[in-house]
Amino acid sequence: MGINAPLNRKLRMALVGGGAGSFIGRVHSIAACLDNRAVLTAGALSSNPERSKASAADYGIADSRAYGSYEAMLDAESKLPEDERIDFVSIATPNHLHFEVARAAVEAGFNVVCDKPMTFDLAQAESLLETVKNSDVVFAVTHNYTGYPLVRQAREMILGGELGEINAIRTQYIQGWLRTNLEKEDQKQAAWRTDPTKSGAAGAFGDIATHAYNLGRFMTGEMPDTVSCHLKTFVEGRKLDDYGTAVIRYQNGALGTCTASQISHGRENDVEVEIDGTKGSLKWRQENPNEMIFRQNGKPHQIYTRDPNAPHTNAAGAGACRLPAGHPEAFFEAFANVYVAAFDDMAKRAAGESFERVNTVYPNVYDGVEGMYFIQQCVNSSNENAAWLPLKHAAARR
Amino acid sequence: MGINAPLNRKLRMALVGGGAGSFIGRVHSIAACLDNRAVLTAGALSSNPERSKASAADYGIADSRAYGSYEAMLDAESKLPEDERIDFVSIATPNHLHFEVARAAVEAGFNVVCDKPMTFDLAQAESLLETVKNSDVVFAVTHNYTGYPLVRQAREMILGGELGEINAIRTQYIQGWLRTNLEKEDQKQAAWRTDPTKSGAAGAFGDIATHAYNLGRFMTGEMPDTVSCHLKTFVEGRKLDDYGTAVIRYQNGALGTCTASQISHGRENDVEVEIDGTKGSLKWRQENPNEMIFRQNGKPHQIYTRDPNAPHTNAAGAGACRLPAGHPEAFFEAFANVYVAAFDDMAKRAAGESFERVNTVYPNVYDGVEGMYFIQQCVNSSNENAAWLPLKHAAARR
Amino acid sequence: MGINAPLNRKLRMALVGGGAGSFIGRVHSIAACLDNRAVLTAGALSSNPERSKASAADYGIADSRAYGSYEAMLDAESKLPEDERIDFVSIATPNHLHFEVARAAVEAGFNVVCDKPMTFDLAQAESLLETVKNSDVVFAVTHNYTGYPLVRQAREMILGGELGEINAIRTQYIQGWLRTNLEKEDQKQAAWRTDPTKSGAAGAFGDIATHAYNLGRFMTGEMPDTVSCHLKTFVEGRKLDDYGTAVIRYQNGALGTCTASQISHGRENDVEVEIDGTKGSLKWRQENPNEMIFRQNGKPHQIYTRDPNAPHTNAAGAGACRLPAGHPEAFFEAFANVYVAAFDDMAKRAAGESFERVNTVYPNVYDGVEGMYFIQQCVNSSNENAAWLPLKHAAARR
Amino acid sequence: MGINAPLNRKLRMALVGGGAGSFIGRVHSIAACLDNRAVLTAGALSSNPERSKASAADYGIADSRAYGSYEAMLDAESKLPEDERIDFVSIATPNHLHFEVARAAVEAGFNVVCDKPMTFDLAQAESLLETVKNSDVVFAVTHNYTGYPLVRQAREMILGGELGEINAIRTQYIQGWLRTNLEKEDQKQAAWRTDPTKSGAAGAFGDIATHAYNLGRFMTGEMPDTVSCHLKTFVEGRKLDDYGTAVIRYQNGALGTCTASQISHGRENDVEVEIDGTKGSLKWRQENPNEMIFRQNGKPHQIYTRDPNAPHTNAAGAGACRLPAGHPEAFFEAFANVYVAAFDDMAKRAAGESFERVNTVYPNVYDGVEGMYFIQQCVNSSNENAAWLPLKHAAARR
Repeated sequence: MGINAPLNRKLRMALVGGGAGSFIGRVHSIAACLDNRAVLTAGALSSNPERSKASAADYGIADSRAYGSYEAMLDAESKLPEDERIDFVSIATPNHLHFEVARAAVEAGFNVVCDKPMTFDLAQAESLLETVKNSDVVFAVTHNYTGYPLVRQAREMILGGELGEINAIRTQYIQGWLRTNLEKEDQKQAAWRTDPTKSGAAGAFGDIATHAYNLGRFMTGEMPDTVSCHLKTFVEGRKLDDYGTAVIRYQNGALGTCTASQISHGRENDVEVEIDGTKGSLKWRQENPNEMIFRQNGKPHQIYTRDPNAPHTNAAGAGACRLPAGHPEAFFEAFANVYVAAFDDMAKRAAGESFERVNTVYPNVYDGVEGMYFIQQCVNSSNENAAWLPLKHAAARR
Repeated sequence: MGINAPLNRKLRMALVGGGAGSFIGRVHSIAACLDNRAVLTAGALSSNPERSKASAADYGIADSRAYGSYEAMLDAESKLPEDERIDFVSIATPNHLHFEVARAAVEAGFNVVCDKPMTFDLAQAESLLETVKNSDVVFAVTHNYTGYPLVRQAREMILGGELGEINAIRTQYIQGWLRTNLEKEDQKQAAWRTDPTKSGAAGAFGDIATHAYNLGRFMTGEMPDTVSCHLKTFVEGRKLDDYGTAVIRYQNGALGTCTASQISHGRENDVEVEIDGTKGSLKWRQENPNEMIFRQNGKPHQIYTRDPNAPHTNAAGAGACRLPAGHPEAFFEAFANVYVAAFDDMAKRAAGESFERVNTVYPNVYDGVEGMYFIQQCVNSSNENAAWLPLKHAAARR
Repeated sequence: MGINAPLNRKLRMALVGGGAGSFIGRVHSIAACLDNRAVLTAGALSSNPERSKASAADYGIADSRAYGSYEAMLDAESKLPEDERIDFVSIATPNHLHFEVARAAVEAGFNVVCDKPMTFDLAQAESLLETVKNSDVVFAVTHNYTGYPLVRQAREMILGGELGEINAIRTQYIQGWLRTNLEKEDQKQAAWRTDPTKSGAAGAFGDIATHAYNLGRFMTGEMPDTVSCHLKTFVEGRKLDDYGTAVIRYQNGALGTCTASQISHGRENDVEVEIDGTKGSLKWRQENPNEMIFRQNGKPHQIYTRDPNAPHTNAAGAGACRLPAGHPEAFFEAFANVYVAAFDDMAKRAAGESFERVNTVYPNVYDGVEGMYFIQQCVNSSNENAAWLPLKHAAARR
Repeated sequence: MGINAPLNRKLRMALVGGGAGSFIGRVHSIAACLDNRAVLTAGALSSNPERSKASAADYGIADSRAYGSYEAMLDAESKLPEDERIDFVSIATPNHLHFEVARAAVEAGFNVVCDKPMTFDLAQAESLLETVKNSDVVFAVTHNYTGYPLVRQAREMILGGELGEINAIRTQYIQGWLRTNLEKEDQKQAAWRTDPTKSGAAGAFGDIATHAYNLGRFMTGEMPDTVSCHLKTFVEGRKLDDYGTAVIRYQNGALGTCTASQISHGRENDVEVEIDGTKGSLKWRQENPNEMIFRQNGKPHQIYTRDPNAPHTNAAGAGACRLPAGHPEAFFEAFANVYVAAFDDMAKRAAGESFERVNTVYPNVYDGVEGMYFIQQCVNSSNENAAWLPLKHAAARR
C-alpha cells in the first residue's frame, strides 16, 4: 500500500514561522516528515523576506518556495498546478498571529495544522471555528501530548469503561525555565511567551496548563462544568501568570485539579496526569512517556509499557507505536502521531472521500476553541477571587 | 552517657487504646520502645476489662498493670511510688476519645503522646491547649511524618534560606483502601474512620489531609492566611468526605494545594510534598522516604539520600538517622523520632530541668490545635461552595 | 496469646561486641527488641572492662550485667537462676572473634545469633557446625536481607513453582564507602574490614558478596555446582579485595553472576537480585525494599509491594510484615524478622518443645558454613586465574 | 547555512533490505531522514523483484528506483548522472548478507551505513576493513546506542578525566522476547536471529551483547585485554545462545562484565551501563535514556538529564540534542545521530574535502571488526570452558 493511500503520494507542507530562534518550527518540520508521508516544500519563515529565504536553506526549502509573508505564500501557492501546490500549512508563529494565518489558509482552501493555543483570544477562536465549519479543510491543533501511545491507550481504556466511572482527574504541568526574569535577557522564547500582546491573556496557563487540562479532557472524555482558578505572578515585573492552580467540577460529578508552574527550580517539562475511576486508576508522566501505571485494589500495580504487541495494548495504543517495546519513543513521535492522523484525513479529502470533521483522533478546531475558553475562564475566575465560572463551551466535543 | 540523660533510666509508658484490631496502638508501642529508651509498662487497651487484660499479654504488660479503663489506670498509677509509676500516656484510641483521655492524663500530671487529629473538634482542641498550658507536662502529637530524617533535613534547609523565599507548596495524600464501602463489611478501621460520631467532621481531610497540610507547614514554617476547600464523597452511602482538594494562600504570598483521597485504586499511602522557592525546589515522597530531590536551575537534579555522614546533610537530618546511607529506615523509625524528641523533654522534666514548650521539634499541642482548625475551616469552606475562609489560628507557631 | 508463646515471657538477650564505634551492635540490639519479645539484659560490649561498663549504660544494661569479657559473662550468667539468666547471645564483634564466642556460648547451652560471615575461615565454620549439631541450641546467622518481606515472598513464589524452572540468578552488591584508603584514617569500620587478620581471607567478597550470593540461594533454593571468580584490589595499599565478580554454575543448569564493589563512587548499599525462570522473572533492590517487580511475557510488569493484605501476597510475605501497604518497612524490621523467627524456636526450646534445626526460615549454622565455603572458593578461584572450583558444600541445605 | 554544508543539498539514500516484516529497515529510513538531510531515493528491499517494488511504495520510493537486487541497484545507480545518483547505501538485511552488499557498495564508490553485527564472521569483517581502507567512502556501522546524547556526554566526561581512572565497567542487555521457541512460530525476526546460517556464530551475544560491550568501549575508550565467556541456550531446540555472561579484563587493569539475555520474562530492551572511576561513577539505562546518574562520594547523587542548555552538559552531549530538557528524545533520534555524524563526512567527501576515517564520532568499520572479534572470542571462550582468550584486535581504536 502506498503512502497516504488513497492518495499515494507524499503531502506537501508549508511552514509559517519557524525562523532562526524558533523552537516549535523545527519540531513541526521534523514531526510532519518523520514518517516520510510529507515533504516540507514551502515556507514563510519570517516576515522579513531576506531572513525568510535564509532560513529556508536550513530547512531544505527551495528559494523559489521561500516567501516573505504568509499572504504571498498562500497567493503564489494557490496559483501553482495542483500537483505542485502545497497540501497543508503548519502554523508555528507566536500566538497572536495564529488566527490571521489560519483563517487565510482555510479560506484559501489549504488544510491547516495550527500550534496551540489556537488563537490569541476566545473571540478569534470562535470566529475561526465558523470559518473552518464553512470550509472543507482538515484542521488540526497540536495538543501534541495526545499523540503519545499510552495517552491514546488510556483514552480507549477509559472510554471503554475499564476504569469505571471517573471520579477524579489530577493534572500538573511543572516547569522551571522562567524562574528568573529571562524575558529581560533577550531570550526570544521567554520574550514573546511572557508578553500579553503576543501570548494572550495568560502566561503559564495559556502555554502549559492548557496542555494539562486538555490531556485530562482527552483521556477521559468527561465534560467540564465549572472552574475556580487562582493565578500568581511570582517573578517580579512579569506581566503574565507564571504559576497557578485551577479546580474543575465536571458534569458527571468528578473533581479535577490542574496546576501549572514555570517557576519551579530544575523542573523541566513535567506533565503528569492521574485519573481515578471506580474500577481502576491511572498515572502517566510525559517525561517518562513509555510507561503508565494502572492500579486496581487487590492487584499488583501494573506497569503498562508502550508495547504494540502486548495483549493488553488496545488498538489506539498499538496504532500509535512505531517500535517494539523497550525501544523508547518520545516527543517527536507523539507529535508526529497528531500529524499522521490528520494526514489520513487530508489524503481522503484530496482523493475526494468523506472524513470525520468533529470527533477526530487528532485535536481539532473544536478543541482549539475549548482551550481558549479554558484560558479565558481561568483568567476571569482568578480576577474574581477564584469565583466559580462556567467551563463547558458549546463547541466542546467528547 | 546513660539512657534519657539526665534521668538515666528508661521511661515507663502507658498505652490507651490498641486492643485487638488496632493498627496504631501497635505502632505506638514499637515506635516508643524502638530505641530502648522506654518500656511499655501499663495499659488501658480496651474499655472492656477482660479484653483489656487479654490484650495486655500481647504487649507483654503485666496483668497487674492492665486496666479496664483509662480512669482506673490514671488513678492507680498516680498512687504508685514514683519509681514504678508511668511517665507518659500514649493515646491510640479512635479520635472522639482523645480529648477526655488527654485532659485527664495531663491533669493527673502525666506526659502525653496523642495521636492525630488531636481531638474530635476545634473547641476540644482549644480547651486542651489551655489545660496543657496550665500544666508542666510534655505533650506531643504524632504527626509522625515530621519524624522522617529528610523531612527534618528539608525543614532546616528551608528555614536556613537554602530554597529562598517560598512560592508554592504542593501536597498530596493519596490512598485507595476506602474505594469500596468497607465500613459495611465489619472492618474496624474503616468503621470508625468513616463514622462522624467517632472520626469528627471530616473523613479523608481529617485522617490524612491534615498530615499533608502539616508537612507543608512543618517543612516551610510559612503561616497560612486563607483556605478554599472542596470535599467530595464518592462512595455511596458514606457519611464523610473520601476525597477533596484545598487551595491555601499563605501570608507571604505563597500558594498551596492539598489534595487527599481514600478512593484512588491501588494507591497505598502516597504522601508527596513539592516545595518551590526562589532559590531551589524540593520533592519528597513518603513511600520512598530515604530520597529527596533538590533542584536548582542550571544544576543536575540532586538526590539527597538519608545519609548521616554526608557533608550536605544538616544537623536536623543527621540527628534523625540511626543507620548509615543505603540501609533504609522507614515508618517506625520516623514515628520513633517523634517519641525520642519528646523523651528528651520528658527526661528534663523528670530531672527538674526546664524545657521548650512551644517551638519543639516534635509536633505539640499547638500543632494539634492548628490541625483541628484546618479540618474545621476546610469543612466549612466546602459547605459554603469553596468560599475563602481564614486559616491562621492564633495558636499557630512557626 | 502471650509473648513468645508457649514461653509467655520476654527473652533475655546478651550482646557481645557493640561498644563505641560499632555499627552492627546497635543494629542487633534494636532489631532483637523491636517487637517487644526480648530485652537486652547483659553484655560483654568490650574486652576492656571499663569500656564495657561505660557502653552498658548506653544500652540500658545494668552495671551488674556488664561484663569485661564474654567468658566472664557466660560463666556468671550460667550460674544465675533460670528466671534471670540470659536466653541468647548475639555476636556483633569483628569476624575473627565470632568463632570462639559462638562455640563457648553454644557449649554453655545458650542460643546464639551470630553476625555474618559466621567465622574467620571455613575450618572454624565446619567445626562450629559440629558443635551446634551436638548441642540443642537455636543458632541463627544474620543474613538479614532474607528477613525482608518481599524476599520471603519471592522465595515462597519460587519454591512453589511460580517462576518455573530457574535459569539465571544475577546478584549485585555495590557500595562506594571504601573508594579511598579510609582504613588509614582511623575509621574503625574500615580498619577491621580491610584487615585480613580480622576480616578473613576476603574483603568485599567476605563482607558483602556473601550477602548477595546468599540472597540468590535463599530465594531460589537452587544448589550451586562450581564457581569462577575474579577479585580485584583497586585502592592502593589495601590488603583485601574491594571489587570482584563471580560466575556460578548451578546444579540445575542455571547460570549465576555475583558482583560486589566497595569502590563505586556514591553507591550506598545497593543489593540487587534478578531471577529468571521459565514462567516469570523477578527483580528486587534492597534500597527500595517495599517493591519487587514480577514480569511475565504478555502481561504488564507487575509491581508487588509489601502488602500483607493483598491476595497475591503469600503467607511467607505477609507473615514478615508489621504494617499495611504504603507504610514502608525497612532494614531494622527485616533484621528483626530474622530474630523473631529464631525466637519462635528459642521459646519452643525453653518450653521443652521440639523444633526444626536444619530447614529453618532464618539463616542458620548450615548457611553460615556455606557462606564460608563461598568465600574460600572465590578467593581460591581468583588466585588460580578464575579457575572453576566446586561450590557445593556438603552442609548446604535448600 | 544550507543542509549538508558544504554540499548544500539533501543526500540520496538507498535501502537494501527492509521489505515487509522488517523491523530495522523502517528504523533506518526514519532515522536517516529525521533531520531532513537525506531523502530515501532507491531501494533493493527484497530479492524478489515483485516484492521489492511492492515494498517500495510503502517507503515512497519511485518504481523506477525500486530494484530487484542490490547488484542491479548498484549497477543502475552508478550509471545515473551525478545529480540523481544515490549518495549512500543503508544495509538492513539479515547478518549473513551484510558483507557482500557492503563490499559491492564500497567498491562501487558509494558510502555505506551498515547494520550490526557488521558481517557474518570475523574473516569477512577483516576483509571488508581492507576494502574500505582502499576506498575513499564513508562507512558507518549502526551501533545506534552510541547516538544517545547522554552516552556521548558520558564519553566526553570520561575521556576528559572527570571519572578519573576507570576501574569497572558493568554492562547488561536483558530481553525476554525469545523466552519461548518463537522461531518455530513463523516469526520472521526470531527465525533469522536464531539461525546460525543467517545470524552467525552467536545468538544473544551477536545480537545484543555486542551492543552492550560496544557501549562500554565507546563510553570509556578503554582497550580490552582478555575475555572469559560462558554462553547458555535455555530454550530447548534452539541452535544459538540465548543467555550468557562475559568477564573482560581491560589493559589498564579495569574489570568488565557483560551479560546478555533473550529469555528474561517481560524484559524489553534493557541496556544498562555502570562505570566506576576513581573520581566518580556513572549509570545509564537505555529504557530511560534522558537520564544518567553521576555519583561522587560526599555529594548528592546527581541526575544529569538530556539538557542541551545546562552548564554541565558538554559539547558532545549538547550537540546530540534536538529538543530542550524535559521533551524526551529517544531511539529514533539516537539512531539518527549516528546518521547525521556520517552525513557530515559524506558531505565533505562529496565536496572534495578531507575527513577523518578512523577516529570518527560514529561507529565505523574498525568498530565493526572489533564487534566481530568480540563475538568470535566469546564463542570460542565458551566452547573452551570459559577460558581466557585475547580480546584486543589490532584494528581496535580508541
